[in-house]
Amino acid sequence: MDLPAATELDGLVVVLVRPRNPLNIGAAARAMSNFGAHRMRLVNPYALAFREARSAVGASAILKDAHEFKTLAEAVSDCTLVLGTTAVRNRALQHPLHRLDQGVADTIRKQLDAGRVALLFGSEKIGLTNEDFSHCHWLVNIPTIEGHISMNLGQAVAVCLYELARSSSVEQIRERVEPARAGEIEQISEGMLEALQASGYVKPGNDAVAEKKVRRLMLRLNLEAMDAKVFLGMVRQIVWKLRQNSEG
Amino acid sequence: MDLPAATELDGLVVVLVRPRNPLNIGAAARAMSNFGAHRMRLVNPYALAFREARSAVGASAILKDAHEFKTLAEAVSDCTLVLGTTAVRNRALQHPLHRLDQGVADTIRKQLDAGRVALLFGSEKIGLTNEDFSHCHWLVNIPTIEGHISMNLGQAVAVCLYELARSSSVEQIRERVEPARAGEIEQISEGMLEALQASGYVKPGNDAVAEKKVRRLMLRLNLEAMDAKVFLGMVRQIVWKLRQNSEG
Repeated sequence: MDLPAATELDGLVVVLVRPRNPLNIGAAARAMSNFGAHRMRLVNPYALAFREARSAVGASAILKDAHEFKTLAEAVSDCTLVLGTTAVRNRALQHPLHRLDQGVADTIRKQLDAGRVALLFGSEKIGLTNEDFSHCHWLVNIPTIEGHISMNLGQAVAVCLYELARSSSVEQIRERVEPARAGEIEQISEGMLEALQASGYVKPGNDAVAEKKVRRLMLRLNLEAMDAKVFLGMVRQIVWKLRQNSEG
Repeated sequence: MDLPAATELDGLVVVLVRPRNPLNIGAAARAMSNFGAHRMRLVNPYALAFREARSAVGASAILKDAHEFKTLAEAVSDCTLVLGTTAVRNRALQHPLHRLDQGVADTIRKQLDAGRVALLFGSEKIGLTNEDFSHCHWLVNIPTIEGHISMNLGQAVAVCLYELARSSSVEQIRERVEPARAGEIEQISEGMLEALQASGYVKPGNDAVAEKKVRRLMLRLNLEAMDAKVFLGMVRQIVWKLRQNSEG
């Protein structure tokens, strides 16, 4: 019997945020090779762990090609959809939360036709932070048992990629426009924040909260690439004027 | 938001055949706890590995309650359905082979109503043998990429249990909450237009064209009602500042 293999996940970017254990980094890479994902990125990995994982016997091409970033914003800047994984179901989250088995794979596959999708996994101890979440369009939860929600990092990666490799029931055809990249949204968010600071909307000392609030709002807009360019131009012109006024 | 947890897999028996790595045994137990399976059995485990896994810090109740058997026949004797997992797809198998994502979970769940189901995982190096297969009703294959079929034991267990915990009915993601009304979008558009005029983005004489352009852009954002209120507040504050500056 010869069953069809999984389809490849070329456009998927697996982002490990602050991983600490070389075995977990290696396990994540192995799961990626099993399910046809190639792009691994690490944000501030524990240096020794990354070095050990890379130099391990049998370390894959995925690990050798993995890129390291100082910030999450840089790691996802070319992606059009950024999803954070979280074990937590009922914490007061500011983001939409979807169960991995409830249509998430279909949504990701559709987005992969248009651009890159980043799937974020937090550190072994604390997972992703609220600051990390603020870079995400929405969040994904693996349906685990109450009281045993915390998954091993390598296993969480394996389960998510399996869900993507799983055959989907019904393919839906939809007209695609080109979505904006996270890096473009980040530029707009930065401009909006400056305009809001200059105009007094953001009170002094509230910058960090405002930054997350603005970023989340801009991500929810689901901007198309063309609109993002136009919008960025508008925001920059407004910022320029506000600056000029404050100097004059 | 509070999503339902996975259902428990009380009647499922996870059988590790000749496992050699204590970390993998521990990882299998952790995946079982994540997805609500409790019964672990080991057939001829490498003695040291089992001892190490059991005595590891944080070893779960599952490991402490795990039973050891000399033969596979004994390990599955109380089960009404015995399934072997294999990475191999096109070897001349004497057994029916089903892809994990092709109805396997439904069949297992139905059988679990009637009795215990054993899911077998082979050793890290060679997997299950033909002798092991001979104890199985049929075989299960995880859909991996050609050339990268061999999964880590702990990850294979996690993926299989996830498939069982997965809900069979897939709901589509509904990301929309209450949408903004056209009147609210219009207010935002008016504010944006004024900000763009004040900042010099809109050249004198181009107001009519700019107005349409801004309105279309704002409509494409598909703002939710809540976000529209926030956005309008932001735009109005910026307009207020720009006006104040031009008057001062």
